[in-house]
Amino acid sequence: MYSVHFTGETSSNGVVERDFVVGEVPGVLFSPASGSDRAPLVLMGHGGGLHKKTPALRARAHDTVTTWGYTVVALDAPGHGDRPRTAEDEQARTDLRQAMMAGKPDQVASVSARYGASLAERAVPEWQATLDALQELPEIGTGAPIGYGGGISLGTAIGIPLTAIEPRITAAVFGGGFVVHEALIEAARRVTVPVQFLLPWDDEHVDRQSALALFDAFASEEKTLHANPGDHRTIRWTGLDEQFLARHLGQGSVVQ
Amino acid sequence: MYSVHFTGETSSNGVVERDFVVGEVPGVLFSPASGSDRAPLVLMGHGGGLHKKTPALRARAHDTVTTWGYTVVALDAPGHGDRPRTAEDEQARTDLRQAMMAGKPDQVASVSARYGASLAERAVPEWQATLDALQELPEIGTGAPIGYGGGISLGTAIGIPLTAIEPRITAAVFGGGFVVHEALIEAARRVTVPVQFLLPWDDEHVDRQSALALFDAFASEEKTLHANPGDHRTIRWTGLDEQFLARHLGQGSVVQ
Repeated sequence: MYSVHFTGETSSNGVVERDFVVGEVPGVLFSPASGSDRAPLVLMGHGGGLHKKTPALRARAHDTVTTWGYTVVALDAPGHGDRPRTAEDEQARTDLRQAMMAGKPDQVASVSARYGASLAERAVPEWQATLDALQELPEIGTGAPIGYGGGISLGTAIGIPLTAIEPRITAAVFGGGFVVHEALIEAARRVTVPVQFLLPWDDEHVDRQSALALFDAFASEEKTLHANPGDHRTIRWTGLDEQFLARHLGQGSVVQ
Repeated sequence: MYSVHFTGETSSNGVVERDFVVGEVPGVLFSPASGSDRAPLVLMGHGGGLHKKTPALRARAHDTVTTWGYTVVALDAPGHGDRPRTAEDEQARTDLRQAMMAGKPDQVASVSARYGASLAERAVPEWQATLDALQELPEIGTGAPIGYGGGISLGTAIGIPLTAIEPRITAAVFGGGFVVHEALIEAARRVTVPVQFLLPWDDEHVDRQSALALFDAFASEEKTLHANPGDHRTIRWTGLDEQFLARHLGQGSVVQ
């Protein structure tokens, strides 16, 4: 079993960011500067081609820390961010770039689906090992509720199979905006925790029906589909249930 | 032009209910017992076969009055509640009952669609005449913002064509749970105000795809689809945006 090795620390606007590695996987832990004793832990994924500190993820993480007093953890997905790329990673990137430049959406979709499934297979055990290691830290421990805080696209393609087999995750935010493959539908059928599913209604690169089929597949008794106009880059969420994770994970220990 | 004739008044839990008729259309006005000077006005529709004071509608109306300080108005739809039934109303009810007893869902759908379209054609001018008359009342006037507060099923089948042609309505809550016909899709294409669309995800009597097509058709720049598991009777809404009308209509004059 791996331990958490901290490699750096910065602090801004009341949020401490601690870089770490677990085995060979680099991650970052966002927590309240005022302390976070056994606060709920939210796992956040980044989009395809991005990394653990990409601006949108960092903004969501800071907001979660300062609003709810939660701890947030993000990892670089395999072949992303600070991680080396395998031959498969390089090939998938080349194939994707070529399919896009050739204007072949079907080919983009099939490469994305295959590569997304492969990334999820590699990433799920990394997330589990990271959770094991984080729970050894005294400020986290085994008692803190854990939620998957999503991110549409790759963050959801990894988060669904992770949530399907990881009983420590008790609520999850997922989102559309990517290519849905059959293995993902199968994984969704094994998800039973409360789910909030965010769907950009107009995504030219993504089949809306397959995203709706994914929402349909969740076995969760409590699940919400929330759609607004726009694609996954232009979307402006309105009237979103911001309390979703807080309702299920409870309050952090340090807010107010 | 018709005036509002009040025919009765009761009061409970801080809400005054005033029965009225405008022409031959009976309605009820729910308002705060503490006064409602020029508060926003919310129009509420009832479901097929029900009436203006059906328990679910009354509960929503009371909640809207006491939470936001708004005035709420409900009408009996043509052939419903205290209103006489025409030969067409009687025939449609007979046809519906027979199709249901014979276990013919396609026939139920086609009768519902035809009758729903006919009810909407009769109800829209009644709502407009009622708005004209209500705006003559000093406590309402012409300055108060007006929203359509929905109700799934018949309330939406009437509310969409009303909102499409009635510029006084500046925000609308609609919902699935009924048979969508082509005229309704056409009307939705002319709706441009902010829309909140509530969809019971599992309704055995309703085609989900047609409800999604209806949401897709709204021309509104701001629209939200919110779906939860259940049919239109068993649905338990979770994480709903309760502030939707308040964001668009503003605050009533009497709350806090």
